[in-house]
Amino acid sequence: MTTATRPQTIRFLQSPTRPDWIDQAVANLDTVLLDHSHCERKAAGVALNLMFRYPSSAALVRSLTAIAQEELSHFEQVNQWLDRRGIPLGPLAPSPYGAGLKAQVRRDEPCRMLDMLLVSALIEARSHERLGLLADHCPAPELASFYRSLMSSEARHYGAYWVLATTYFETDEVNQRLQELATVESELLATLHPEPRVHS
Amino acid sequence: MTTATRPQTIRFLQSPTRPDWIDQAVANLDTVLLDHSHCERKAAGVALNLMFRYPSSAALVRSLTAIAQEELSHFEQVNQWLDRRGIPLGPLAPSPYGAGLKAQVRRDEPCRMLDMLLVSALIEARSHERLGLLADHCPAPELASFYRSLMSSEARHYGAYWVLATTYFETDEVNQRLQELATVESELLATLHPEPRVHS
Ligand SMILES: [Fe+2]
Ligand SMILES: [Fe+2]
Ligand SMILES: [Fe+2]
Ligand SMILES: [Fe+2]
Repeated sequence: MTTATRPQTIRFLQSPTRPDWIDQAVANLDTVLLDHSHCERKAAGVALNLMFRYPSSAALVRSLTAIAQEELSHFEQVNQWLDRRGIPLGPLAPSPYGAGLKAQVRRDEPCRMLDMLLVSALIEARSHERLGLLADHCPAPELASFYRSLMSSEARHYGAYWVLATTYFETDEVNQRLQELATVESELLATLHPEPRVHS
Repeated sequence: MTTATRPQTIRFLQSPTRPDWIDQAVANLDTVLLDHSHCERKAAGVALNLMFRYPSSAALVRSLTAIAQEELSHFEQVNQWLDRRGIPLGPLAPSPYGAGLKAQVRRDEPCRMLDMLLVSALIEARSHERLGLLADHCPAPELASFYRSLMSSEARHYGAYWVLATTYFETDEVNQRLQELATVESELLATLHPEPRVHS
């Protein structure tokens, strides 16, 4: 087993990505790239929505302003890749992953805030893992380096969401809830979604 | 009449700001600064929402990605000023201006898109005018220079929204609708709102 094919253990994630996701993604690079564009815009939107919801939480506002800026820069870079590969911008039905995680967010505060931060942390952790897999397995070398260049930001993002969770909540509560949500996150990816997506 | 007090004519705006807004703003610099922080975050949110709504419109996505990034950078800079002046982040009831303009947006496409672009253009034009007034009249010289430093971006933003409107719609239709909306925009500011705000 080479480094490139060894399942990487990413902090927070309970199960590594199924190997057949890699085959699906590599066989559908253009669709995955278009979905990736939507993911980056959504990541910026999630950070901004959290800032709208918690305008008095200075640490959250400061950290998420930086994340939103980086996600917009990723969005711009992915769109340049779409352009370069002649893929038009357009809507794409999402995989059930995002909605499945969102359904876990409890309605009442402060649980809602904790869940939103941890769901974001998990999505960022999974994105980090999958960008790494794309970097390792994408047959187009320049696109592979592009994926590699994004990995460290996504790793910083999941760390930042975790830090925010522990800023506003007790570490024990954060750990326990993270475990519950991480179980759901892995279950949502246990069956490969038939449409190729970043989170299929 | 000096340059500093002469009403500036800003493209798109039907009436210059009432002189008593300047007195109100200068007497309430901290509140206006906190409101300004909310305005910058909202401006980023509006740009992002438009990208979510029109994901296939490449010119719109490209232009609004840049605007959203700049608004987030303004948001960050205004928040640094709040920090420096010891003003805590927190919610603030908005003036009726934004809701009054939003109420003018027609529900059906493509009118909705045109109206959203033109309402944004008008808000940016008014922000440009008012940042200029703050730059001219703010008694704290460093804060005044900060306001001046933001003016050129806001001027670019109203230009960019105008360009997008004429990209997707006929110039005659754009001009006619802009006049209608600009009339409402000036009417909304004809009476000074009692709470000091960027758009009171
Ligand atoms: Fe990203
Ligand atoms: Fe991210
Ligand atoms: Fe701005
Ligand atoms: Fe602006």
